[in-house]
Parts: sequence; structure tokens; C-alpha cells
Amino acid sequence: MTNLPNFENLYCPLPLVSKSHIVLGHGSGGSMTHNLIKEVFLQAFGNPYLEAGNDFASIPLPKVTRSKGRLTISTDAHVITPLQFPGGDIGRLAVSGTVNDICMSGGIPLYLTAAFILEEGLSIDLLKEIAFSMKRTAEEAEVQIIAGDTKVVEKGKADQLFITTCGVGWIPSGREISGDRAQDGDVVILSGEIAEHGIAVLAARGDLHFQTTVVSDVAPLNQLISLLLQAAPHTHVLRDPTRGGLATVLNEIAQQSGMGIKIEEELIPIKKEVKSACELLGFDPLYVANEGKFVAILPKNEMDAALQALASHPLGKSARLIGVVDQENPLRVTMKTLIGGTRIVDMLSGEMLPRIC
Amino acid sequence: MTNLPNFENLYCPLPLVSKSHIVLGHGSGGSMTHNLIKEVFLQAFGNPYLEAGNDFASIPLPKVTRSKGRLTISTDAHVITPLQFPGGDIGRLAVSGTVNDICMSGGIPLYLTAAFILEEGLSIDLLKEIAFSMKRTAEEAEVQIIAGDTKVVEKGKADQLFITTCGVGWIPSGREISGDRAQDGDVVILSGEIAEHGIAVLAARGDLHFQTTVVSDVAPLNQLISLLLQAAPHTHVLRDPTRGGLATVLNEIAQQSGMGIKIEEELIPIKKEVKSACELLGFDPLYVANEGKFVAILPKNEMDAALQALASHPLGKSARLIGVVDQENPLRVTMKTLIGGTRIVDMLSGEMLPRIC
Repeated sequence: MTNLPNFENLYCPLPLVSKSHIVLGHGSGGSMTHNLIKEVFLQAFGNPYLEAGNDFASIPLPKVTRSKGRLTISTDAHVITPLQFPGGDIGRLAVSGTVNDICMSGGIPLYLTAAFILEEGLSIDLLKEIAFSMKRTAEEAEVQIIAGDTKVVEKGKADQLFITTCGVGWIPSGREISGDRAQDGDVVILSGEIAEHGIAVLAARGDLHFQTTVVSDVAPLNQLISLLLQAAPHTHVLRDPTRGGLATVLNEIAQQSGMGIKIEEELIPIKKEVKSACELLGFDPLYVANEGKFVAILPKNEMDAALQALASHPLGKSARLIGVVDQENPLRVTMKTLIGGTRIVDMLSGEMLPRIC
Repeated sequence: MTNLPNFENLYCPLPLVSKSHIVLGHGSGGSMTHNLIKEVFLQAFGNPYLEAGNDFASIPLPKVTRSKGRLTISTDAHVITPLQFPGGDIGRLAVSGTVNDICMSGGIPLYLTAAFILEEGLSIDLLKEIAFSMKRTAEEAEVQIIAGDTKVVEKGKADQLFITTCGVGWIPSGREISGDRAQDGDVVILSGEIAEHGIAVLAARGDLHFQTTVVSDVAPLNQLISLLLQAAPHTHVLRDPTRGGLATVLNEIAQQSGMGIKIEEELIPIKKEVKSACELLGFDPLYVANEGKFVAILPKNEMDAALQALASHPLGKSARLIGVVDQENPLRVTMKTLIGGTRIVDMLSGEMLPRIC
């Protein structure tokens, strides 16, 4: 014992410099930030745009795009917990989520940016794993990550890691895809089984209280969409049923277009294991998040070609017709249930599964 | 007293629905999210791109840009605390920060996206104030906010509000501005007084222990840069000394270009009050953040025109020559001090002021 209070015991901050964990200095904008960028992000994403070391990336557009068409832009903040889950991680999600939003405009994804908010104490090895997962997913999606930002907040002021991605793509001239373009008589196609992402993330949280082998469907959809649009060039609407699930996106489309959408429960593809998990948990799978599926609404005469194109790709092998667009119940989504009745399918109201994406 | 435990006292969550504060349901992707977007973000940013209600914005490029030039893209995550401070708030910062990064490429900012991470319990009125501050700053910068995202995390998993913006701009053909283009004999111009943002934010945190009237310089620089580039079309480098301050960006430029940079302490503009605050706190103002200033490096023969153009705009009225680029000390920044010596000015190493932007 001395007469001086032992200040060291009063507060135990992380060391000012650390090679294994994120500390506040990694967000200073100075040399520690530069070293982190070099060791983690340039290692993973390295390309001439990032290596130029500017706060921006300047990019030529591919020649074919210069004369006609439009740019398409989308952004998503990712706050999923846990960071890693069966079938993916926040990095694969952050790339796929934004690539898919670009695809849903009919656009060809070209470039991504990624902004990282790191909590003091995050493992740098974990950050590296996630950065390399982003790299692999970006390669799969044929996009480059060309600009980024890194911020650090004190322990307890964030939850390990948040990643916000922004994507830029190109919509070829003449392609008009939007939620308000659903038309009377169009068919509604779903690209595969629903509710896998939500159940896989719940399982990773240990919230299920039973064993499951469900894995998240998180994947970039650019190749599948490209096949679809070659086969069905007059596709009116594309949308990925992420947060809020299939029910919510169908409601969004009904409201944007002023049309009604009729689906049939028995046509909706869902894996047996996912269905059982939803039943045990009391979840309606129509509201559970997906991260590698989409709804396509297109003219009936392009349906067969569309289904054939989708079936030719691993991510679309369970694609099928699930309903039609008509004007009988404008602005409403209705579903013929397995027992033969018809019910209104509302939009998700509050929160079912927080931080699923 | 009853025999049942009083569950209500064990955990007191926020109500599931709230009109005054953010709850988890606002991040569900369902109708609560839609209502929040309508009431806050569409009210503030409303434009046809956002109102279309898709997860993307598809935008025609201005006609003049179609034939030549390049796109420029930048992103920034903003985690500043407190959210409001003398001279600005996180909203003005988020728009200005990204607009300015686009400007530093020589680009004309066109469009922004904004992704919001909200902590459960955030006041919706405060969110509205910040959204309207973004709207006003976007008008000042002549950009539109055309796509966004909203996520909510549980209380204690973020710090009120983080905003990540991404910007897209256009670089006219022939304009080549980058940190690696600083050349022997170039002059170094600074657009105004330094260190105001950092000191203003510290004051807002109550960390100063003395009174100050310093306000942040946070502002979009697009008009000032446009005037500069008309007057000095061969500008080689533009960079805004944000995190890490003037010393850090000059070091970045020295390293990118392989040149040495010599500055003179007595030429660096700084307000008396800011200088006093830095002295009292033991801060070197060369390392304190700015959010409405830039360094321009350009050929000597365009210097007079550049300084005249800058002086014609309120944000550039204190602009002046602060140094030169040469090869005497490659990769180094050196400064002639007030007392006549010369010292090496290093890059900021660790963290001086966390969460300044």
C-alpha cells in the first residue's frame, strides 16, 4: 500500500497500440489507420483505385455504357449479429446485399464502396477473415471494392463491426425495372426456397433451443439475374425479399403499382427443415429474411423461358411460379392457403428478428 | 406482494411502438420502417428517386458527361460525438464530408446516398432536425440524396446515430487531380484558418474547462473548388485536412508523390482564439481536424489567379500560400518554425481526438 491511489486499477483501457485488437488510434486518420488499411483492406481488396491512396476513386465507365443507359446506385448498412453464421458472415452479406439491390434495378453491378465502423477491442484476425470473405464474394459478383473508410468508436459504443456498402451499376438502355411496373396478368416467380437466412442466423445466436443444419442463402445474384433478363427481357419488377420477407416485398410492389397480387401457399418453395423450425418458433416464413432470393414479375408469355433460364443455374434450381398480378384486390396481397381458404397477407408491422442483416 | 415474480421490474424495454423515440421495429423493414422513412427522410430529402420506393435509384447522367470524363466515388462513415456542436451537426458533416471528398478529386458532386444506423431510444425529433440539416447542406452543395437505408440496433449497441454517406460525381475530361501529382516547384496553398472543427467539437463535449466561441468550419467546398479550378486549371493535388489535420495530409501527399513539402509556420492561418485553445490544451493545431478547408498544390504560374479566385468567396477569404514542393527532403514534410529553426512534421501516429468526424 502506498499513499497514492492506484490509478491503474481505476480504469483499464486497452493499450494505445495493439497488433491483435482494434484500438482508438486505428481510427485517427494517421499512421495507425494507414497501417490497418494496408494490412487488412489493401491485402484483401487491393486494386489500383484503392492503392492510389486518395479519399476517392475515379473510374472510367466501360465504353459500351457511355452512349446510353443510366447509372444505378444503392446503399445498405449491415448490423447483423453474430458476425459469422452458417453459410456466411457480415462481409459476404455486405457485398451480396448491395450487389443484389443493384441487380434488382436491372443493373449490372460495377463498383462497391465499403465503410467500416469498428468497436475498440475487435479482433484484427476476425476483421481480416471478414475482409477476405468480402473479397471472395466481390470476385463471385464480378465487382471491385474501390473506395472505403474506417472509423473506430470506444468499447460499448458499437457492436464489434458495422459495414455500410454502396454500389454503382449500369442499366443498359431500354431496361425499365421498378416496383411500380407490375401489370395486370403478369406472373410472379420466386427464385428459390424461403426463410433460410433468418433461421440460420437465429441458430447461430443460440436462440433456437434445438439443432438445425439450415444455412443462410446469402449470395450475390448477378449471374442468375443476367440469365433471367436474357430469357425474359420484358421483366417488369425484381425485388429481393430480405428484411420483412416475401410478404413485405409483395406488399411493397402492390402498393407501388396499385395492383393486387395473388399467391398460393402450396406453390411457395420452402425446405422441410426450415418449415419445421418456423413452426416450432411460431414464425410465419413469409416474413423471415432471405439474402439470396428474388421475386420476378413479368409478362406471362416470357414465363417459360424465365423458369428455364433460372433452373439452369445452381441458385435458381428451385425457382417457380407462385402467383399472379391482377386488379381484383388492388393494393392487396392475398394467398390461397393449403386448406383452401384465402387470406390477406399484410406487410410486416413491427420487428420479428432484429439485426438480421 | 404476490407469489409471482414481478417480471415488469426485471426488464424495462422501450415500448414496441413509439412516435417519439426509435424502437427496434423501426428497423424491421416492414410498415414501421416505411412510416419512419416517409415521416423523416422523405420529408427532408424528398425527390422522385427516393419517392419511387425502390431499393435503388436509377439516374441519367447529365448529357455533357456522357461522352467523356470519369466517374468519381467516395464514402465516409460518420461517428462524431456529440451529434450537434457549434457550427454544425452530424448531418451537415455527413453531407459536407462526402461532397468534399468528391471535390478533392476535381469532381463535380452529383448524387449522395445516406445509410443510417440508429440506436434504440434515439429521439425522432432529433433525427428530424439532423435530416433537415442534411437537406439544407445538400442544397448548398447542389447534390441530391437519392438512396438510403435505415437500420436499428438495441440500446447500448451503438451511440445514438451513425451516418454513412457515399457520393458520386463527375470528373470532366482532362482534369487529373491526385495525391501523387505534386511536382517539384509547385506551390502549396491552404484555403483558410486551421483547427476550428476539432476545437469546436471538444468545446461541445465540455472537455475544454474554459469558455470559447470557436465554431466548426464544416461546409461543402464545391463552389470554392469550382472557382479555384477555373482560375488554376492545372491544379495537381487537392486534399481536405480532416482527421489527422494539415500535418497528416501533407505527409500523405509527400508519400504518394515522392516529393518533399516545405511549409512555414508563420504563413499558416489560424484564429487567435483557436491558437490559444490549442496552447492551453497542449494540442499542435497542425494535427487538429478541419471540415471546411483544403490544401491545393499547383504550378507557381497559376498561384496568383488561384489566390484571387479563392479570396472572392467567403469560404476562401483567408486562403494563402503556406509552402512549396521540392526534392530536397523527399517523402518528408518540413516546417520553418516561428523562431527560425526547421523541424520535421510527422504524420499523426495514434489518436488525439477520437470521434471527431
